[in-house]
Amino acid sequence: MHVVANAAMSADGKLSSRRREQVVISGPDDFARVDALRASCDAVLVGGGTVRADDPHLTVEDPDLRAERREAGKPPHPARVVVDTRARTPPDGRVLDDAAVSYVLVGESAPEDRRTVLRDAGTELLVAGDERVDLAVGFAALEAEGIDRLLVEGGGEILFSAFEAGLVDELSLFVGSLLIGGRDAPTLADGMGFVDEFPALDLKDVERVDDGVLCRYAVE
Amino acid sequence: MHVVANAAMSADGKLSSRRREQVVISGPDDFARVDALRASCDAVLVGGGTVRADDPHLTVEDPDLRAERREAGKPPHPARVVVDTRARTPPDGRVLDDAAVSYVLVGESAPEDRRTVLRDAGTELLVAGDERVDLAVGFAALEAEGIDRLLVEGGGEILFSAFEAGLVDELSLFVGSLLIGGRDAPTLADGMGFVDEFPALDLKDVERVDDGVLCRYAVE
Ligand SMILES: NC(=O)c1ccc[n+]([C@@H]2O[C@H](COP(=O)([O-])OP(=O)(O)OC[C@H]3O[C@@H](n4cnc5c(N)ncnc54)[C@H](OP(=O)(O)O)[C@@H]3O)[C@@H](O)[C@H]2O)c1
Ligand SMILES: NC(=O)c1ccc[n+]([C@@H]2O[C@H](COP(=O)([O-])OP(=O)(O)OC[C@H]3O[C@@H](n4cnc5c(N)ncnc54)[C@H](OP(=O)(O)O)[C@@H]3O)[C@@H](O)[C@H]2O)c1
Repeated sequence: MHVVANAAMSADGKLSSRRREQVVISGPDDFARVDALRASCDAVLVGGGTVRADDPHLTVEDPDLRAERREAGKPPHPARVVVDTRARTPPDGRVLDDAAVSYVLVGESAPEDRRTVLRDAGTELLVAGDERVDLAVGFAALEAEGIDRLLVEGGGEILFSAFEAGLVDELSLFVGSLLIGGRDAPTLADGMGFVDEFPALDLKDVERVDDGVLCRYAVE
Repeated sequence: MHVVANAAMSADGKLSSRRREQVVISGPDDFARVDALRASCDAVLVGGGTVRADDPHLTVEDPDLRAERREAGKPPHPARVVVDTRARTPPDGRVLDDAAVSYVLVGESAPEDRRTVLRDAGTELLVAGDERVDLAVGFAALEAEGIDRLLVEGGGEILFSAFEAGLVDELSLFVGSLLIGGRDAPTLADGMGFVDEFPALDLKDVERVDDGVLCRYAVE
């Protein structure tokens, strides 16, 4: 499986403000780039924190990209995946609607009643890990479902865990020309953080996009 | 007074790890750039957190740059400034040695015995603010001392406060090709963070330096 991470952060590394309200970080060109990146993937994954904060849809906006996918024999949108240990995702969340297939990666500990609610909403449940979703196990389960190219869109907790587990192959990072600040605002990689060894990135490309900078890295 | 902020952060916006140990983020070319930037300034300012974590010297390394400063009738190194409300900077800190003039910006609340210790170490004390150093007042006091070009080198608490007070004119930001991660690691701009209005940056220049990216912004 090939895993691409993508995010838009402020010049000080934040994904949103401490209120976890969405902040406009990028612009139309980066939006179109991310739309095409989604269209190139079999599934788009986010953490439960992002679902709670943003209620994202994670679908492909551009009708031409959807048509291209259909011509290639694919569904118009990639599958959506939520990482949600205790299956707390609201069944009326946009990420679970019938626009596309939806998976929820849950832990062994996910209560049966919550699982039933999600299954009744037409969601596929994949169990991976216990206290917290084990992303390596979860990604392998997704691969067994035929997902060969996975886009991880955040947030900062999931991105850290995915990097920590060595699961990410590429990172595309839009650095917006604004400051968000805040020691409690989510950053591109939160979690416990690295302390002795720091994952090295290999800068493949850097260009101006919108009023910011797009950096593309391979993960070493 | 013209104020330039400079920092090196990881691709996820961190200035160092959660242990606040120094992490190698940039390389020799960026180091030389920062050395020249220091040499172009009348003073280099850091927060007390940075002094406690790194015991920095904040002097100009390159003898040619020091010679140029001397030829221009300046001292070999710019002055060093520590922002330290309660005057807790250790008198044997490298930033207070006799390589260059040192200022400490303290609050009204700084205990008299601590002030004496710092004065005895040959430090100039400037009082600005009460509970915490008021950077606008402190920068004006520095300007009255003849400092027309000030480099703010961090850390994340001081940088946030300086941006919040609208005191920064330019930001140069090296984005290193590594991840540090950690929700408790210092970022380029910590503090309380912005929530409704976010300071806008104007991207003037972006280039590859060492194995990372150097972004230069004007602050709008
Ligand atoms: N700018 C962008 O590109 C972008 C993209 C995405 C999100 N965001 C922002 O990011 C913020 C949300 O980020 P976030 O960091 O709070 O949440 P997140 O990474 O989306 O989700 C974190 C949650 O996932 C669950 N989880 C399960 N297994 C995990 C594992 N192995 N590792 C880590 N988490 C695991 C945990 O909750 P449970 O234990 O309950 O399962 C955890 O709280 C929002 O403010 C959103 O707007 C911005
Ligand atoms: N990569 C880089 O370019 C770079 C550069 C610099 C630092 N760093 C790293 O940054 C970390 C230190 O950053 P930090 O954020 O902890 O500390 P900091 O910004 O260097 O200093 C913060 C301290 O300054 C004092 N202060 C006084 N008035 C203030 C005001 N108005 N606003 C904010 N602070 C005020 C406060 O202590 P009092 O109340 O006691 O005075 C505060 O704790 C270290 O890990 C260091 O390695 C990295």
